[in-house]
Amino acid sequence: MLALQGHALGFEIHVLSESSEDPAAQVVRHHHLGKLNDAQTLRAFLQHVDVATFESEFLNADLLQQLSAETGKGIFPEPRVMGLVQDRLSQKEALADAKIPTLPFVAIEGTDALSSLLGEAQFPLVIKRRRFGYDGYGTFHLRSSLDLPSVEEMMSGIVDGFIVEPRISFKRELALSVVRNARGEKVALPLVETHQEDSRCDWVKGPVYHRDLNRIQKLLFHLTDKLSYVGILAAEIFETKQGLFVNELAPRVHNSAHYSLDALNIDQFTLHLLAVTGASLPKVHALSGGFAMANLLGKTGETPNWSHPLSGRLHWYGKRENRPGRKMGHINACGKTADEALKLVLQSRKKFQL
Amino acid sequence: MLALQGHALGFEIHVLSESSEDPAAQVVRHHHLGKLNDAQTLRAFLQHVDVATFESEFLNADLLQQLSAETGKGIFPEPRVMGLVQDRLSQKEALADAKIPTLPFVAIEGTDALSSLLGEAQFPLVIKRRRFGYDGYGTFHLRSSLDLPSVEEMMSGIVDGFIVEPRISFKRELALSVVRNARGEKVALPLVETHQEDSRCDWVKGPVYHRDLNRIQKLLFHLTDKLSYVGILAAEIFETKQGLFVNELAPRVHNSAHYSLDALNIDQFTLHLLAVTGASLPKVHALSGGFAMANLLGKTGETPNWSHPLSGRLHWYGKRENRPGRKMGHINACGKTADEALKLVLQSRKKFQL
Repeated sequence: MLALQGHALGFEIHVLSESSEDPAAQVVRHHHLGKLNDAQTLRAFLQHVDVATFESEFLNADLLQQLSAETGKGIFPEPRVMGLVQDRLSQKEALADAKIPTLPFVAIEGTDALSSLLGEAQFPLVIKRRRFGYDGYGTFHLRSSLDLPSVEEMMSGIVDGFIVEPRISFKRELALSVVRNARGEKVALPLVETHQEDSRCDWVKGPVYHRDLNRIQKLLFHLTDKLSYVGILAAEIFETKQGLFVNELAPRVHNSAHYSLDALNIDQFTLHLLAVTGASLPKVHALSGGFAMANLLGKTGETPNWSHPLSGRLHWYGKRENRPGRKMGHINACGKTADEALKLVLQSRKKFQL
Repeated sequence: MLALQGHALGFEIHVLSESSEDPAAQVVRHHHLGKLNDAQTLRAFLQHVDVATFESEFLNADLLQQLSAETGKGIFPEPRVMGLVQDRLSQKEALADAKIPTLPFVAIEGTDALSSLLGEAQFPLVIKRRRFGYDGYGTFHLRSSLDLPSVEEMMSGIVDGFIVEPRISFKRELALSVVRNARGEKVALPLVETHQEDSRCDWVKGPVYHRDLNRIQKLLFHLTDKLSYVGILAAEIFETKQGLFVNELAPRVHNSAHYSLDALNIDQFTLHLLAVTGASLPKVHALSGGFAMANLLGKTGETPNWSHPLSGRLHWYGKRENRPGRKMGHINACGKTADEALKLVLQSRKKFQL
């Protein structure tokens, strides 16, 4: 989707990915096949571009930082920020430093430290590995000491450490994306509700009004200034009785803002590209009273059978393999209200046999 | 833009064009370089696709019809319709047959026939070559007999004949695109006003309300049924004191509907692709009270200097050469009214140095 929006801006897009069947590889003239963490590959790739960005934050941030300095090619958001965000501990510390409300946390090395922690902490707890967790992978729930043996087993073999947080009950999950360019211009997308099934985003609707929206938006803007952040930053947020808590940051375009392709005056992909190329950022507004997005998640492993939804717009990623739970595409729709739009995308989704 | 919307639908897009610098060639993995009227080239190209469509109607329709039959690959709209539309005489006859209001016309071979015609006809007259005219090329104005020598000179050497029409004064030019699939489902885009400068589309705004809209839409639907038309069909329309007159048809996506990329629940490119691939057609509606598009026409011949417009969405075609008058891109915007949107796109356009 980044490549497609880049095309519409007339940019010459080069894609580096590890398979020629990757969605981005299918829609560009200049596809470079190679390992994303290989210095030679990255160095060669950077020769082709003026500026680079990424769709996954799980890359070798130190290597990227070094290559950016060596080649003089900007990589945005800067790899040092990627490094900060990809470790949940430094990410939580950055949130706390910027006074952004987030759940209290303790860092532990492994199961030994967990045992000693349990004397003081209250169940239920959530344990997250510090690195490479996503969509619920690497997250373990400790409802009581009865869960301890199975959780300890899952934790064994993970060497990069964990953070432990209280597990809170929240009303709903929200998401907010903000964008900043190098001159410090900042815009925010609307606040949205995100609904998860099995720890995977199932649908999104918005806009959501919340009394703390302005405050949290200002704090995220402040964080991006502190980090000299360039590009789009997504925040996953818990809405609780005690207010909003930022759960997690993603330094990239995010599933929770895919609706923006059809519901805003400008989409997250274009905003990100404008930011990383040094352009000005337009004000962001919704085109209708409400909007929604439904993910199309793989189910059967067979070739999907679909027709264009009569309500809403289909975005189909062209992934060759339909794996259960895999994000194969999504449907966007606008409506007078968020709920009206949500009804449309959920109806449309029923027409898909995945 | 067809390729980009095809990508979003997950289609595997193959492009055949005569330069690897063509906008479409730049945004696809599968570009085939070759002459568009060469049988061998077309035959080889058709092997790669399930269905083909075109962006220009000035191809060899007979050859395409023959190759479609030979290869069993559908080409939509069907080449016989391309042939019918690319000759202004058969196009006008088709309009008249379908009882679509159009200006009266006479077909002539060349300047001899013109002289004998002038005894009966009233000035001012418009003479159009039957084939290969576009954007004012191949259209000559006879205000009085004083223009005769220069017009005759321009007509000389054109062998495919002409049609002669009265030149009428019109209030404004409008455009209406309709889409039909093979099952006979039909949808119409909003009626829009198109403003020309030097016979080139300068801006478009809409929606336009006109008492005859329903009638003309029905008649165009009827025409597409009669022709078993598959795909999008654009009609350029004169609004006069005597009502609406269809001036010209284009059997393809059309500049007058480029606004649809950002102003409707679905755009003309996606609609066309859905139609030619046999999918159902969603109902079409505008996302806001008004919308507008401004073309970015080449001016200087130098490399353009642009930044993203703060109001509106930029679509930049990536054409390598900035020729005066060339369509280099466009800007879309939505607003509460058509005029509000037009103001936005015209303001944004000022930021471009072409």
